[in-house]
Amino acid sequence: MIKVGIVGGTGYTGVELLRLLAVHPDVQLTAITSRKEDGLPVADMFPSLRGVVDLAFSSPDKADLSQCDVVFFATPHGVAMAQAPALLAAGVKVIDLAADFRLKDQATFEKWYKIPHTAPELIAEAVYGLPELNREDIAKARLIANPGCYPTTMQLGFVPLLKAGLIDASHLIADCKSGVSGAGRKAEIGTLFSESSDNFKAYGVHGHRHTPETAAQLARYTEQKVGLIFTPHLVPMIRGMHATLYARLTKEIDDAALQALFEETYKDSQFVDVMPFGSHPETRSTRGSNMLRLALHRPEGGDTVVILVVQDNLVKGASGQAVQCMNLMFGLDEATGLKQIALLP
Amino acid sequence: MIKVGIVGGTGYTGVELLRLLAVHPDVQLTAITSRKEDGLPVADMFPSLRGVVDLAFSSPDKADLSQCDVVFFATPHGVAMAQAPALLAAGVKVIDLAADFRLKDQATFEKWYKIPHTAPELIAEAVYGLPELNREDIAKARLIANPGCYPTTMQLGFVPLLKAGLIDASHLIADCKSGVSGAGRKAEIGTLFSESSDNFKAYGVHGHRHTPETAAQLARYTEQKVGLIFTPHLVPMIRGMHATLYARLTKEIDDAALQALFEETYKDSQFVDVMPFGSHPETRSTRGSNMLRLALHRPEGGDTVVILVVQDNLVKGASGQAVQCMNLMFGLDEATGLKQIALLP
Amino acid sequence: MIKVGIVGGTGYTGVELLRLLAVHPDVQLTAITSRKEDGLPVADMFPSLRGVVDLAFSSPDKADLSQCDVVFFATPHGVAMAQAPALLAAGVKVIDLAADFRLKDQATFEKWYKIPHTAPELIAEAVYGLPELNREDIAKARLIANPGCYPTTMQLGFVPLLKAGLIDASHLIADCKSGVSGAGRKAEIGTLFSESSDNFKAYGVHGHRHTPETAAQLARYTEQKVGLIFTPHLVPMIRGMHATLYARLTKEIDDAALQALFEETYKDSQFVDVMPFGSHPETRSTRGSNMLRLALHRPEGGDTVVILVVQDNLVKGASGQAVQCMNLMFGLDEATGLKQIALLP
Amino acid sequence: MIKVGIVGGTGYTGVELLRLLAVHPDVQLTAITSRKEDGLPVADMFPSLRGVVDLAFSSPDKADLSQCDVVFFATPHGVAMAQAPALLAAGVKVIDLAADFRLKDQATFEKWYKIPHTAPELIAEAVYGLPELNREDIAKARLIANPGCYPTTMQLGFVPLLKAGLIDASHLIADCKSGVSGAGRKAEIGTLFSESSDNFKAYGVHGHRHTPETAAQLARYTEQKVGLIFTPHLVPMIRGMHATLYARLTKEIDDAALQALFEETYKDSQFVDVMPFGSHPETRSTRGSNMLRLALHRPEGGDTVVILVVQDNLVKGASGQAVQCMNLMFGLDEATGLKQIALLP
Repeated sequence: MIKVGIVGGTGYTGVELLRLLAVHPDVQLTAITSRKEDGLPVADMFPSLRGVVDLAFSSPDKADLSQCDVVFFATPHGVAMAQAPALLAAGVKVIDLAADFRLKDQATFEKWYKIPHTAPELIAEAVYGLPELNREDIAKARLIANPGCYPTTMQLGFVPLLKAGLIDASHLIADCKSGVSGAGRKAEIGTLFSESSDNFKAYGVHGHRHTPETAAQLARYTEQKVGLIFTPHLVPMIRGMHATLYARLTKEIDDAALQALFEETYKDSQFVDVMPFGSHPETRSTRGSNMLRLALHRPEGGDTVVILVVQDNLVKGASGQAVQCMNLMFGLDEATGLKQIALLP
Repeated sequence: MIKVGIVGGTGYTGVELLRLLAVHPDVQLTAITSRKEDGLPVADMFPSLRGVVDLAFSSPDKADLSQCDVVFFATPHGVAMAQAPALLAAGVKVIDLAADFRLKDQATFEKWYKIPHTAPELIAEAVYGLPELNREDIAKARLIANPGCYPTTMQLGFVPLLKAGLIDASHLIADCKSGVSGAGRKAEIGTLFSESSDNFKAYGVHGHRHTPETAAQLARYTEQKVGLIFTPHLVPMIRGMHATLYARLTKEIDDAALQALFEETYKDSQFVDVMPFGSHPETRSTRGSNMLRLALHRPEGGDTVVILVVQDNLVKGASGQAVQCMNLMFGLDEATGLKQIALLP
Repeated sequence: MIKVGIVGGTGYTGVELLRLLAVHPDVQLTAITSRKEDGLPVADMFPSLRGVVDLAFSSPDKADLSQCDVVFFATPHGVAMAQAPALLAAGVKVIDLAADFRLKDQATFEKWYKIPHTAPELIAEAVYGLPELNREDIAKARLIANPGCYPTTMQLGFVPLLKAGLIDASHLIADCKSGVSGAGRKAEIGTLFSESSDNFKAYGVHGHRHTPETAAQLARYTEQKVGLIFTPHLVPMIRGMHATLYARLTKEIDDAALQALFEETYKDSQFVDVMPFGSHPETRSTRGSNMLRLALHRPEGGDTVVILVVQDNLVKGASGQAVQCMNLMFGLDEATGLKQIALLP
Repeated sequence: MIKVGIVGGTGYTGVELLRLLAVHPDVQLTAITSRKEDGLPVADMFPSLRGVVDLAFSSPDKADLSQCDVVFFATPHGVAMAQAPALLAAGVKVIDLAADFRLKDQATFEKWYKIPHTAPELIAEAVYGLPELNREDIAKARLIANPGCYPTTMQLGFVPLLKAGLIDASHLIADCKSGVSGAGRKAEIGTLFSESSDNFKAYGVHGHRHTPETAAQLARYTEQKVGLIFTPHLVPMIRGMHATLYARLTKEIDDAALQALFEETYKDSQFVDVMPFGSHPETRSTRGSNMLRLALHRPEGGDTVVILVVQDNLVKGASGQAVQCMNLMFGLDEATGLKQIALLP
């Protein structure tokens, strides 16, 4: 059994880790920390876990995380970089669901996150935890930077085209839409029901932290200079993320070959479902599951390819992906404990 | 492996059966019928099942349901009574998720459902499939009448008090609220998003089919005459049911004893969670799971006891309960394949 | 023109007052205060008011409210009682949308609201602002205690029956449901979209401040002792309130006479719509309007009468009612500026 | 008073016309037709209109529409072209909210709408009813083709840039999102609450009828060849439309000049609100109002300009715009009867 610790279990990625790990056949939940909720049974905060999880939150100083085999950080940015060095030194693997190790360029990190990086010596070692593109490195990693939710959809949609040299990398457009849970479990007016229900809006259009993360990753797959316009929007739904990606083809290719390119790329990826050409994936087809679905379009047969990508932002976009990484790191089948079927309706 | 057939798999209880049975360790999905969708792969209608269920719908005449061990009817009222006799004769067990065998009084059935009963000889044999109250009979049954969603909440809330002779049975009030999926997957204006979102209303207040079903079942647990006012309401949410039950105490009893009565009643029921006295269960704490949660209140210490009951109307209120019955009928632990944790948020 | 001031305009009742008063033909918006937002143009906080309201919030000390003809308090409990004495002394009328003057019994107020009353000398003078029951007193009042949203529905539903002596006043049950905006515009986890969407729950079942307010008002219309069970619930919709009221008839009366009683009671009330007997009013039929709709039922012809009542909690349940009171206080037709038609769909 | 007839009043644009026209100071509602609902009081179908509209639906043959001054067609495509010739001959003005007269090229119409055009002689005369771009022609028109909801947002966003020759017209991208009411009041499974709530998806990505309509209109403002990728999406909200428009700048221009261009273009348009540069308009800021709001962005200062546009799809995107046209046609201020403030929250 893998002994698992969770730092910061009071947010949505934390409770989602608990939902997944509580029934994972190879995991023993060992500790979950929260400075503020020390002593509170987890199931008192999340009644969905009554009878399933009997751990209580403990303050970080009481929890001996060094006894764990792996620790997940479901925390705000900045926490993992503070605690990772000691854990790694104690032989504990670390999976950070926040951004601390996602950017290889320290200056870029510090510019966008506005905090100094306190463990720069680990940046190079950290492995970007997107299994579909990085499976081998993840299997060998001690420290995982779990991708952001938006970047997962953008990369899995654009990379096959970039690698094949089919598109103009300098003018990629990603019009993305996220359910409200992506904003986290924080008391804020903007995400109150009465503010975000029956409403739709864009945010951060001038510049969003997920742009440099995605652009840097995409650059690994092309020699062209990457130019990415990323526009996030807030959708009045709890879970779900939809990316509508636009790229201009620079070579002749027919629809069947485009489709074949994606099917080939993901033929060994259990969690990427390449739907038939021209399909319209729905976010709800992934609700609660680790599946990401995508479909290709070419409006009126022109030179623009449109890729539609959906996932559950809390599963494949966060906690499910983290568990998928853990499975790889411990030599398990990457789908272990992740076979939940989406809840539809 | 239990060979399972489903008649009428295109509605919400049908797809929910598929979600649960596809990962049930002792089940082999064998046939799913739909006259209208003959030949259509199930996953084309419900993309959440892509890669999980590879059956196609078949017309009833092609599907040889007599080879199944058990057949679920996820159909409108009237279908199960037509097909059950032949299936039972062929040694196939039958679980009807509709109302055909819920009412022991044929005339009452025909009055409320406005169709003649075509298998009256089976009415007496049919077992009412509410495991928490009827476990032994279900285990021996060939034919199950799976309870309605509302009646499940009302019975599990009222019965402990009725059995203990603590309340006035003649003036029970059940103010119930259901998510929209309870209305089924039918093209109707009243349940369009634009009609039922951001809205709340009662319906059928003059009289609803679940009133005689519930009253007849409650009468089994008391010698008093049962009088039940049942008021259903439609809530703008997909899944979930909340019953707010009111009963007048006729004997002195303190809160602790009330609580103990419920805890004792359900101490062997894995799917009934008696929450601490004075709790407010939320429907979302059961979303996608087979759990029913309830809590007791006694406003300002008076003689009225209020019982709050929540469940997922498609799981414990329908398909999950049906699978729970199947487990009992085949000698399995009743929780087999039903350990999904609620999706929260 | 009536010069109007608003204290505390940053919440939902505040912005709703602005929506209604900005187009009221006899009103001149003069000042709106907010300690925290001093200097911020109102339309920067509420973009729906861009081009319509050009006031900025001002801190209470800068705003000379004594120049107004009437001041609305859209504030938390405790603010109006602090400022009302000076305003009244300056000849300014006061309408409090909070609870400061709703309870005639000071001890009851202090018990439920847990603050000392600082203007007890005004309690007796304050007029309860429910025009349909209190029109003449409101017209003469200097100080209005605007009713709570729930109490409005309960009183307009129960009072005709109580006055006519038809029901058992000692066991009234009010099962009420409110949209989330009733919780106000406060940064709290419980009313986040991801917490309250796709969910339904009761709250405060052990005891809610609106119970003593309602019970005290109902007692004015009967010589029986009033016993009221009030159960509030939270509905995943922004606006709207639905009360399902249950009362036991103690005299013989037929449905037509019941209906006639309500139609007669409200025949001069423009904002109470007595729908045909057996109707099911929907909250959305009042969305954004000052209309309250109700309908009577008598399930299976028994001795329980069920009254269904709907309103928009922010309009007839708060700001619209306050404007209706203002109209009466200044000798206008009570519907002036309140003829908005509900937004459906 | 303008005598108004409405053909097809049972859909959402029909009831929205009623909401607006019932309180329009210069309008007398004269007839509303529905073949299916002949005799039914309008307020029985739409209880929001109880006490406000006392018309009943009448079958088309009974309603003498030739006595009206203007007739609105809130019907499916094909109805207006059948009835318009006779009405125009009788001196009645016609405003069609469907597509019959939106496309100047008959063949394009017939290709996309798959019906023969039965009044081709009127196509040339029909005026495209987008007041902000076409005010003078509308004022003189007898026959108005009211724009589609999506095309309104795309045109008002792109036209200033096209007219100024600032962008590459051949690669315009419009990523648009609509509330569910845009699908109309039709009994269909896809727009049931349980199907479209808590979900997000694209549709019609291969090609949508609003693409040729928009492209043809845009072509009027540029000599470049117009290439438009239009991707519609369905948002789980009742009302509201958000267009995210992308265009590549082909000339140097700074942000202030871009902003000034839009402010100048719409300085006389009461219903277009050019928000400060870098704003994020929300759909709810237009809910129930005829206002369209837009804001400009230039992500990371690059050569792509992003225009965010919001409106209420049933008001500025349909019925409100139609009333605005009517006002112009009858010499009224275009805002007459259209000053409703958006409902927020």
